[in-house]
Parts: sequence; structure tokens; C-alpha cells
Amino acid sequence: MVMAEEKKKKVAMVVFSGDMDKLFAAFSIATGAAASNMDVTMFFTFWGLRALKKKTKTGKSFMGKMLGAMYGGDIDRASPSKMSFGGLGRWMFKKMMKAKNVPPLSDLRQTALELGVKMYGCQMSMEVMEIPREKMIDEVDKCVGVAFFLEQAQQADVSLFI
Amino acid sequence: MVMAEEKKKKVAMVVFSGDMDKLFAAFSIATGAAASNMDVTMFFTFWGLRALKKKTKTGKSFMGKMLGAMYGGDIDRASPSKMSFGGLGRWMFKKMMKAKNVPPLSDLRQTALELGVKMYGCQMSMEVMEIPREKMIDEVDKCVGVAFFLEQAQQADVSLFI
Amino acid sequence: MVMAEEKKKKVAMVVFSGDMDKLFAAFSIATGAAASNMDVTMFFTFWGLRALKKKTKTGKSFMGKMLGAMYGGDIDRASPSKMSFGGLGRWMFKKMMKAKNVPPLSDLRQTALELGVKMYGCQMSMEVMEIPREKMIDEVDKCVGVAFFLEQAQQADVSLFI
Repeated sequence: MVMAEEKKKKVAMVVFSGDMDKLFAAFSIATGAAASNMDVTMFFTFWGLRALKKKTKTGKSFMGKMLGAMYGGDIDRASPSKMSFGGLGRWMFKKMMKAKNVPPLSDLRQTALELGVKMYGCQMSMEVMEIPREKMIDEVDKCVGVAFFLEQAQQADVSLFI
Repeated sequence: MVMAEEKKKKVAMVVFSGDMDKLFAAFSIATGAAASNMDVTMFFTFWGLRALKKKTKTGKSFMGKMLGAMYGGDIDRASPSKMSFGGLGRWMFKKMMKAKNVPPLSDLRQTALELGVKMYGCQMSMEVMEIPREKMIDEVDKCVGVAFFLEQAQQADVSLFI
Repeated sequence: MVMAEEKKKKVAMVVFSGDMDKLFAAFSIATGAAASNMDVTMFFTFWGLRALKKKTKTGKSFMGKMLGAMYGGDIDRASPSKMSFGGLGRWMFKKMMKAKNVPPLSDLRQTALELGVKMYGCQMSMEVMEIPREKMIDEVDKCVGVAFFLEQAQQADVSLFI
């Protein structure tokens, strides 16, 4: 008799935040879930897009460029949501994490990708913030709308907005 | 043979934030879900109450008035969670959204209402922040407690805290 | 005929924030859920750890101490996420809540504990932030990893990231 394979449990996340600490939480949950054999979908929107950006400038219009300049850089430029102190907080947390052998965000993202976590960019945010597909890391699955996230979330056992 | 109607999928959200960008995410998910035939319940609490307020002053006690003055206005006065710059950020994002034909928050809320999204105010927050029912838009369903949200969330396929 | 007992509904929360207002939302949901006979698991991580800390100094390394000094204190030192004004916001909200007979955070946490809400500290955050077990209230169940949260969340009817 053939046993039906048990359906994999599933996590679906909206990653709205681009803060270092929240991204850290998001990727920790993602890698933890993927490592325990769950399906993981991450849908990056608004400030969260930083987590998928290449280290490059963005923006076409005057305001898009201004936004790109102020909120530029890749995942390793993310600052904590508290005690940012113009970059000092980022430096401090990176030091403290390193001291406890916690991998940096870019490594954690890489691990997530290797474990099969699916990452999508929110089409509308990318348009509004003027961050085109080619400014994002190649591993991004595709750029999708909110309907796509909702489809994933409906099937998920755990859905989170981070 | 009569086929049983398939049960509608359901989303339940706590909207805690009153930030422009997070409200934008909340209402985009709500309209997206309602447009794909899901049931949507939004429970507005704390800063999120701004999304349901009329353009009017609130507050009775000295501190309630102070809060009303500093955090006053309706949904269109919401500022982004990052790069607020005393109103400049709001202006900038509104411009950038308009350039991409993204509707403003008040339109998005109207669309949500027309699609049947249910919106509730959190009774306790309204009392603490001194925002009475009559200062909120007429379309608000009613003002409820946390138990009401939990009932909705238990039946929901997707629950989010925004 | 013996009726099978109905399975209790379950809520699982990540409490990432240490802000007064968000903690207030988290504990209100937790007590509300427990009072309506749901199982509740709260997993405190990063800034959320403050909600479980004793009123004591933390930190061993230079940076850990700095963090402990700037972000020190127990649950009653938490400030609102908006209009903090160097402590003024905390004072104001405490006054406004008291005027409406809303209990302070420490009482709300106590009620949650008495209603059987389970509270866990995130092991990794505690290490990075240098907050050892003995600096946390005795009622904390144990310190666990993200895998533990995911197990709880999979079984939950409602999962939230706050």
C-alpha cells in the first residue's frame, strides 16, 4: 500500500520592514522553518525591499533618487529600529552578534535561499519606490502582487506580517 | 444534487499602526483579499484608529486634547513610519504614489468598504484616546472589544497584526 | 456515549517589540484569549525581552552594558512607539490609562500568567543582548529557540508577530 506523503507545513510572511532587527527576526524564522522541513514564502514590500536589493543606487525621478540616496544600500546597510544613532546602532549590533557567532543578515539570507525559501518582491512597491527588477539580487523568484501573497497565505499554517 | 457552497476564505487583521505606509499595506491586503472573494475583518486599535477618524479634533481632558492636537487629523494626515521629516515624507510619498497611479489612502479605504470589508474600532483604545464614536466615519461597523477580534481570528485562514 | 472534549483553540505570538503600546496590545490579546479559554503562547524576542526583565541592570561586555543602560529597566519602563518625548509620552499614557481604569502593563502581565498564558524568552536574543535567565522574572517558562515557536505556531489557530 502506498502511503500518501504528509503535506508539508507552510509559513507565509509579508516582510514590510527594512530594519536590521526585524529582518533578522524574519530570516531567523524563515531559516528555522525551512530547516524543520516547512515550506516558506517571503513577500517583500515597501522598506522590506531593501533585503533583496543589490548594493547599488536606485531611483529615476528626482524623488526616487532622493529616496534611493537616503534609504539606499543593500541588506547590510539596514539599521536597527531602535537606537540607530546614525549608524552607531548598526555597528554595535553587528559587533554583538558577531561576538556570539550569529551570522550577518546577508549570510542568513543566503542560508534561507539554500534551504529553499522562496522570496518575492512586491510589484507595486517596486514601481512606487523606483527599484527595478535588475537592481535586486538574482535569486528573487519573481515580482508579484498582493493576490499572490494572499494565495500563499490562505494555504499557510502560519502567516506573519513583519 | 445540490452542491454545498464552498466556505469563503477569511482574513482577520489588527491594524495597530497609524503610519501611512503600514495603513497602505493593510488596505492593499484588505482590498486584494475582498476582490478575490475573501471575507475581510479589520480591527483598528491605538494609532490605527486614525484610519477611521473624521477630519476633526478629539479629546476631552487636557491630555486627550494634547494627544488630539499632536496626532490629529484623518487618514490623509498619516505620515510614513520612516523619513517623516515633519510632513515632507508624506508629501513625497503621496507624489510618488500619484505618479504611478496608486490611489490615496482615503480612496483605498472607500474601495475596501465597497467591496464589503468590515471595519471595527477597538472600544478600549477609543476610550483611552478619547475618540468617541461620532468622531469616526459612519461606515465603521461598531466598536468592539478584543474578544470580538479573537472570535474572528479563530475562524480566519490568515491573521495579521499590522 | 462519551463525547470527545473539543480541542482548545490556540494563539501563538512573537513579541518582538518592547514599546509600551505594542506590549499593551500583546498582553490585551493574550489575556482576552486566555479568558475565553484559548491556549496562549508568547515568545519574546529582541526588544520584547524587556517585558520579561526584572528591574535590574544587564550586560557583561562594554556594549552589552551600554545597551543595558540605554534600554534598561523592566516592563514599566517601556515607552510608547510614538510621541515618546524622552519619557513624557510614557507618563501621559499611564495617566490616560489610569483615568479609564486600564491596568498598567505589569498587572496585565500578572493577569495573563494567572490565566495560564505561557511566556518564553528567545535564547539567541538573550545571548546577543546579554540578558541571562536570572535577570528575568521567575514565571518565564523557559528559554527556547525559534524552532520551539514554529512548533507552537503550526498548531495555532491564530499566529501574530507584534
